[in-house]
Amino acid sequence: MSEISRSSTRLDGYVDRYAARTQGMTASEIRALFAVASRPEVVSLAGGMPNISGLPLDVVGSAVGDLIAANGPVALQYGSGQGDPTLREQITDVMRLEGIEGHPDDVVVTVGSQQAVDLVTRIFCDPGDVVICEAPSYVGALGVFKAFQCEVVHAEMDAEGLVPDALRQAIVATRAAGKTIKFLYTIPNFHNPAGVTLTPARRQEVLAICREHDILVLEDNPYGLLGFDAEPMRALRADEAEGVIYLGSFSKTFSPGMRVGWALAPHAVREKLVLAQESATLCPPAFSQMAVSAYLTTHDWQGQIKQMREMYRERRDAMIEALDDFMPAACTWNNPHGGFFVWVGLPPGIDAKAMLPRAVTARVAYVPGTAFFADGYGSSYMRLSFCYPTPERIREGVRRLAGVLEQETELRQTFGATGPSHELPRSGYDAPSSDLS
Amino acid sequence: MSEISRSSTRLDGYVDRYAARTQGMTASEIRALFAVASRPEVVSLAGGMPNISGLPLDVVGSAVGDLIAANGPVALQYGSGQGDPTLREQITDVMRLEGIEGHPDDVVVTVGSQQAVDLVTRIFCDPGDVVICEAPSYVGALGVFKAFQCEVVHAEMDAEGLVPDALRQAIVATRAAGKTIKFLYTIPNFHNPAGVTLTPARRQEVLAICREHDILVLEDNPYGLLGFDAEPMRALRADEAEGVIYLGSFSKTFSPGMRVGWALAPHAVREKLVLAQESATLCPPAFSQMAVSAYLTTHDWQGQIKQMREMYRERRDAMIEALDDFMPAACTWNNPHGGFFVWVGLPPGIDAKAMLPRAVTARVAYVPGTAFFADGYGSSYMRLSFCYPTPERIREGVRRLAGVLEQETELRQTFGATGPSHELPRSGYDAPSSDLS
Repeated sequence: MSEISRSSTRLDGYVDRYAARTQGMTASEIRALFAVASRPEVVSLAGGMPNISGLPLDVVGSAVGDLIAANGPVALQYGSGQGDPTLREQITDVMRLEGIEGHPDDVVVTVGSQQAVDLVTRIFCDPGDVVICEAPSYVGALGVFKAFQCEVVHAEMDAEGLVPDALRQAIVATRAAGKTIKFLYTIPNFHNPAGVTLTPARRQEVLAICREHDILVLEDNPYGLLGFDAEPMRALRADEAEGVIYLGSFSKTFSPGMRVGWALAPHAVREKLVLAQESATLCPPAFSQMAVSAYLTTHDWQGQIKQMREMYRERRDAMIEALDDFMPAACTWNNPHGGFFVWVGLPPGIDAKAMLPRAVTARVAYVPGTAFFADGYGSSYMRLSFCYPTPERIREGVRRLAGVLEQETELRQTFGATGPSHELPRSGYDAPSSDLS
Repeated sequence: MSEISRSSTRLDGYVDRYAARTQGMTASEIRALFAVASRPEVVSLAGGMPNISGLPLDVVGSAVGDLIAANGPVALQYGSGQGDPTLREQITDVMRLEGIEGHPDDVVVTVGSQQAVDLVTRIFCDPGDVVICEAPSYVGALGVFKAFQCEVVHAEMDAEGLVPDALRQAIVATRAAGKTIKFLYTIPNFHNPAGVTLTPARRQEVLAICREHDILVLEDNPYGLLGFDAEPMRALRADEAEGVIYLGSFSKTFSPGMRVGWALAPHAVREKLVLAQESATLCPPAFSQMAVSAYLTTHDWQGQIKQMREMYRERRDAMIEALDDFMPAACTWNNPHGGFFVWVGLPPGIDAKAMLPRAVTARVAYVPGTAFFADGYGSSYMRLSFCYPTPERIREGVRRLAGVLEQETELRQTFGATGPSHELPRSGYDAPSSDLS
């Protein structure tokens, strides 16, 4: 038993008694940025907050008011650990837009889809288990995997999404090393942070590989309905019910403040998820679930999403145009067909993390690429978000960023590199290719 | 790597690949009861749902409506991982009623106080670590400790609450066995399920023992403001800031459907809790936090709590009177001064769990005592709740229960015991004494 120091000379008297898993709980690079980037003079291309300024507040207000008047004693009471039955019905309607025929009994409502990642990891992963993730992958999911002491193995992406050969190689190499793979975590649509979308042919290949190697797929799909050009893509879950856990969310299509997401899981897994949810929270909030349900019932939510898609497309256009107009020639980027993010490759020798303080001084913020890798890779990349600032601010932000990059390049030419001139190769896997641009 | 069976002949193709911690995630006895006890003909003395029928729905409705009109873009957006700053200020006002001088910076808002138990356990407990709990203890907390693969060591209570000598004995015996104690989990006020309250003198003794032995205290206090006779008791946290994590909740004093609870923790622990919260949910729901905040601002919430106390006192009186009038002489019970629960000892040879199906047939439900022990003890006890049914229904429920007990006693006299005639002693610790009655 370690001694506890109650002396005020120590910053943390409990430092010796935390669980081992807290070593994987560290403040993310995104977190430190939120404080800086929230200053009004800074154009933040860092955060992933949706722009909800178009939401009809009168509709939401009267839906919630009616809910409390008509159903207050239910909305204000404890609810089911699995989630509100009416909402779970409506969630199956939402998923049908992506070709999924799911049953409300197999849906578990979660406190945002972040909690769904947490609960799935909780029921599947022992310390040392491997989760295969795209390279790069969503920082919030990487944080969960680290907090549950998983090992993350990255598999390369290109312009068509996760590369099947890279997935195969990751599986074989991980098993050859005697490790246990618990699932593939993938974001098939409008990837965070990479912006790419898994093509239909690749979807079938990825499913076939996972079937062949008995790998469970965790399909995280917060942005699937926010495509700019076409109908929603067919979900992986639409073609594989037993081998896929599908995660959805109302955070990007309605309101993140409700914290309502969900998992659609094979029946037995669903039972474990409900037990995990009861242990974690007893039940998700009835109040916000029923508010989401009332919104879906009373409002043309699909029309609202259409407006959002147009608004985000305009911002995407503004960002791509500004990148074309301002960025140094050695930079690379992709043109996402939906979602919130553009993944930018920097000229050789520029370190995105080292440059960030100078960028903030120049009143622009982004997320350095290292946040999206579990292994320290990514320093010559950055994630730019076009979801929140106006098109004018986006253009101004990219202009400022280009200025910082030019200064950085000059500095490098004068004084040498600000970071490693060549990225160290990640152990066993390649960097995301420049096909991303 | 275990094989996955996708064959429909197996109930759970994933059975071999869950995390070890899922072995501690089992459906609680309370859970199975919820379904049964919700039938309208059954008087449920089982559940711990507050009676919120007295809440002013017009006030809540207009507070939430005004919130969305005035502050919709904030309430519907992502918020802080630590929780809404205004609400955290108001939470310090609530805690001041129990003598706590806490700073809003040290408050972390959680999805009900259940999630606070989950997050504290997550940051402190490795598999095999010991949590000391009262005997009996809250079923939902025991579930969390099991889910994080902790060992629970129970320490006896009597009519004055946790017995200091039992706590001392538990600490010494656990450490002598080479095990690591991470914290004492205690419910000082109107205990769930035991109904007892830790006396002021005992509070100082418990704090002194925990200081002496360097044991962190997790003080869970959902019912503290729901005392029937006197002013709120002084919290353990009021007299010990560095060695206590205090948990509070709006579920019993306002609305469980909001799922808004909190932890007040020493500063360094608070930082870990925020990181754990960000990993678990990104942030608790801004919408329900701001709704609680608006309710506290616009309504006489202390007057509302006073009404609740009177309503619950009337129900407590109805239950105690019915127990006096109907129950067999060999039963024991206590008379709680607040909260929701009475802890009933059964005549020798009666097994509360074995009897439950017959009770439900007689249209009354309760929770068998075994739910509140981590070690199988408790079969000759039951928890009765007086929070939800009306006084008339409570009286009718107890009358039915007494009838079942009489039949059970007759059956036992005719055919022998329905369960073990003497409880097996729990390893190393005594049963809760009959001083509870």
